[in-house]
Amino acid sequence: MDAAAIVVIGNEILSGKVQDKNSPFLIGELRELGVPVKRIVTIPDEIDVIAETVGECAATFAHVITCGGIGPTLDDVTFEGIARAFDVPLVTDPTLERIIREQVGDRITDAHLRMAQLPEGNELLWDGGLPWPATRVRNVLVLPGSPELVEKKWGAVRERFRAAPFVLRRIYLAIDEAAIAADLQEIDTAFPSVDVGSYPVFAPVDHETQITLESKDVGVVEASVEALLSRLDPSVVVRID
Amino acid sequence: MDAAAIVVIGNEILSGKVQDKNSPFLIGELRELGVPVKRIVTIPDEIDVIAETVGECAATFAHVITCGGIGPTLDDVTFEGIARAFDVPLVTDPTLERIIREQVGDRITDAHLRMAQLPEGNELLWDGGLPWPATRVRNVLVLPGSPELVEKKWGAVRERFRAAPFVLRRIYLAIDEAAIAADLQEIDTAFPSVDVGSYPVFAPVDHETQITLESKDVGVVEASVEALLSRLDPSVVVRID
Repeated sequence: MDAAAIVVIGNEILSGKVQDKNSPFLIGELRELGVPVKRIVTIPDEIDVIAETVGECAATFAHVITCGGIGPTLDDVTFEGIARAFDVPLVTDPTLERIIREQVGDRITDAHLRMAQLPEGNELLWDGGLPWPATRVRNVLVLPGSPELVEKKWGAVRERFRAAPFVLRRIYLAIDEAAIAADLQEIDTAFPSVDVGSYPVFAPVDHETQITLESKDVGVVEASVEALLSRLDPSVVVRID
Repeated sequence: MDAAAIVVIGNEILSGKVQDKNSPFLIGELRELGVPVKRIVTIPDEIDVIAETVGECAATFAHVITCGGIGPTLDDVTFEGIARAFDVPLVTDPTLERIIREQVGDRITDAHLRMAQLPEGNELLWDGGLPWPATRVRNVLVLPGSPELVEKKWGAVRERFRAAPFVLRRIYLAIDEAAIAADLQEIDTAFPSVDVGSYPVFAPVDHETQITLESKDVGVVEASVEALLSRLDPSVVVRID
């Protein structure tokens, strides 16, 4: 299954100045598209750490999405980090340089022009008529840090990621999860393609435990639901959805 | 500086069933205590991935805090992962076994007793009269996944982590960050112990850019603020706090 990793880049997240809204957003989006997220890593704006993290994730997962660190200032070093991860130089993109020069005019500085420098071998994604493209370097999609810009750019490119959907069933039980741990273990063994989750609930609601059964194959999920229900005392099953 | 990593363990986070509230909470707490957070990694309930991630973080950072995966069911494999990270066996803690037997009585299962199995060399933290301890294995503090339980356990042990506080100044500017990128670069070079941050603001407020200057040395931070202000046209400085 073609899984994804999300790499969140920014000292402002790690120091608590800004709360990360991008990874919860992307988790939801990727889930809806049928792409499992297998790792999220939040790291500082440091070239070596970015290079190591992106390099490892790009080698391990089908898709990597980075957020943050692509602006014009000194702490924006994501592209340098990605270039180092793939051992390629930064090159100036002539189209981006022209756009920057048109927009900034006489006020232009080296800082503005840095935004046209991308890792060699990059691909610019202008989907949906984006005025400034999203960038892809091999299997790494590079997004900005601002949640407003992430939503805009991701919204333009998201259909590129669509895969087969997940099927999720939830079973709510009026019983302590430890009491059915052996049953869950059997289901997990009998249905290796089904992700089995068990979550104790501490809030005062009508159930003590929520079981989730999830896979990309609806038939297998339904069979696992039936198999679990056949092992449980019907009086503990509050509801299924 | 003794930095920390947070490792969030749970398929339910990665699949979007539950939003991670623990790492934002712990970032704020650690910041307040003067402990810089340098990495956050969210990973699935898989023993090998936990072992690799915890092992790498424990070798790289002074403190590691894990959240999740310590309940009684099959997907709770955090302690197995940590044991593998340090190449030690799981051993049954007699005190925890006694507590479990007293609380659960005749309904006891192997699943309940699994919660008394901890990596060899663990230390139980009963701070503040916790009815069930927090566990530490070398430099890894192991917390549960439920935010209510995290707040309770962390609240009991947090003073163990207190370090020298951070000093943060914010400068709000009515100017595009690219226009002052060279000034920021000079400040960054002149004050290597100060973390310099630059954040563009897209919302319609009274400033376009927020600069942050942060360190553990108040004198150095104030000197960096003065040095930056001396480089800026006073008319672009909206306020400082």
